[in-house]
Amino acid sequence: MSPEFDLIARHFSRATPGALLGVGDDCALLAPTPGMTLAVTTDMLLQGRHFSPQDSPAGLGHKSLAVNLSDLAAMGATPRWATLSIALPEVNDAWLTAFARGFFRMADSVGIELVGGDTTRGTLAISITAIGEIPAGAALRRDGARVDDDVWVSGVIGSAALALAYRQSRLFMEQIDAARVLPALYLPTPRVALGIALRGIASSAIDLSDGLAADLGHILKQSQVGAVIDFTAVPTLPVTQQYLHDAVARECILAGGDDYELCFTASSQQRDAVLAAAASAGVAVSRIGQITAAPGLVIHDADGQPVSLARTGYDHFAA
Amino acid sequence: MSPEFDLIARHFSRATPGALLGVGDDCALLAPTPGMTLAVTTDMLLQGRHFSPQDSPAGLGHKSLAVNLSDLAAMGATPRWATLSIALPEVNDAWLTAFARGFFRMADSVGIELVGGDTTRGTLAISITAIGEIPAGAALRRDGARVDDDVWVSGVIGSAALALAYRQSRLFMEQIDAARVLPALYLPTPRVALGIALRGIASSAIDLSDGLAADLGHILKQSQVGAVIDFTAVPTLPVTQQYLHDAVARECILAGGDDYELCFTASSQQRDAVLAAAASAGVAVSRIGQITAAPGLVIHDADGQPVSLARTGYDHFAA
Repeated sequence: MSPEFDLIARHFSRATPGALLGVGDDCALLAPTPGMTLAVTTDMLLQGRHFSPQDSPAGLGHKSLAVNLSDLAAMGATPRWATLSIALPEVNDAWLTAFARGFFRMADSVGIELVGGDTTRGTLAISITAIGEIPAGAALRRDGARVDDDVWVSGVIGSAALALAYRQSRLFMEQIDAARVLPALYLPTPRVALGIALRGIASSAIDLSDGLAADLGHILKQSQVGAVIDFTAVPTLPVTQQYLHDAVARECILAGGDDYELCFTASSQQRDAVLAAAASAGVAVSRIGQITAAPGLVIHDADGQPVSLARTGYDHFAA
Repeated sequence: MSPEFDLIARHFSRATPGALLGVGDDCALLAPTPGMTLAVTTDMLLQGRHFSPQDSPAGLGHKSLAVNLSDLAAMGATPRWATLSIALPEVNDAWLTAFARGFFRMADSVGIELVGGDTTRGTLAISITAIGEIPAGAALRRDGARVDDDVWVSGVIGSAALALAYRQSRLFMEQIDAARVLPALYLPTPRVALGIALRGIASSAIDLSDGLAADLGHILKQSQVGAVIDFTAVPTLPVTQQYLHDAVARECILAGGDDYELCFTASSQQRDAVLAAAASAGVAVSRIGQITAAPGLVIHDADGQPVSLARTGYDHFAA
């Protein structure tokens, strides 16, 4: 057995009761549930771009799966199966053990099974494809927002971007405050249960990976509508309030990325249903604005003045 | 629209009549065919490891999809949907145009649809996940070989490894001869139609990515059997015959990788059925040996002497 196969076997072969055949053949074999639609998403994370060599391998295992689960959550899909490709500079048993621990803890929390993968030597890179299931016709798409729908977000917004700005010395924060936002950057929680609970309630949804303005912008564009957002209604961690005088902090909230919260729209008649869904999923949700017929995104500040944004979202090809 | 989304839209968004929703939402939405099992495979290709910066982007588009299609072929699956993640050092329109041309030509030849993806900035890396369908219970697995089954391979073996050895100056070849083996390295043909035609006929199958000895070795191990192979029956391009005095050339045939032919087993009562399946798929197949109860792989030379191999296959973590 070559080291490559041995490595996969040792770290990534586990029982996969939800698959007909898991790791170890040319393909995994899966039996989709009759009547369900498949949701498929893929994300690649690169060292130097999405994480640094100093980042914890367990955190990386968590986050690389979490960002894919967040895409499933944004469609309202139940996670089922994942594949994992890793390029590694060397066979490092301690690193792989920690990575696998973070990966499988995240996987087990939502019941997704690793059914296939590929390992190769190279600069650290991680590519995951996640497959979920949704009852036919129940997917939460980006193109379903309607005029007068409420705009909602889950959890708190901006923490991951604030943590990154702190780490990159673009924003001064007390260390004790920074410690409160850092988990959002390293250990995001995909809103899987909320996405499932919002089936039949939300009219559209997206996950916040590129920033609130940019991601809500995708919903507006694909739904051919606009929105007005109340900046003061956007939920943030209490600790961030004292930094909001800084333009960088405000930008982190409106245009920062990596939160992996859900942004969704729902008819105002669904307010109780949205709150009940959020309660059942154990996640806070906040109503931050409304869909408008006029195209574009308008964000009002506390004094009712529009907030302008220099940067509207994370650009994977920006310098 | 950020350059990233623009880039995906320009090069990779095409009509996907076989999907409910293609590129452009958090997930693709797919309706699996009732009664079919899904086959899922993933492969990551890295610059410096699987290809060089000088390689043609169209060829790279072809090959990166072909290696995944070859895994589907080895299970007997009908290709349906693929996702593509690319890391690129810069947005290079000419490169992307050529890559997409090679990718979609390969895709169109087997009817697979690109339904999702991810692009990011970084050292060139390509990760593809391919999904196919197989009637329940009809998948060609690695663990089905039985004692006395015939061992077969499709096409010709060793050409890709000979081309690589020539390119790396490990093997002298006349330029006119090298030109005949190079296409196998750059433009492998996944044996999709053959894999489908072998459903119900082959007892096991694998695709030759790591070399005949190593890949057949996986079948033997998972089926808990052995095999005897006749080296003189292993099909090669006529042009390679004059180089077989060189140990490097012999090793390319038995232990070289990247051929993406199928190696499969079938009962001797299925010989006519195998030949008919191959004829219907338009691919030559050759019977090269037999499955034995004694474990291990024995390869006999023309004079009946066992051939010994220093290297048994491509190791993705070898130096």
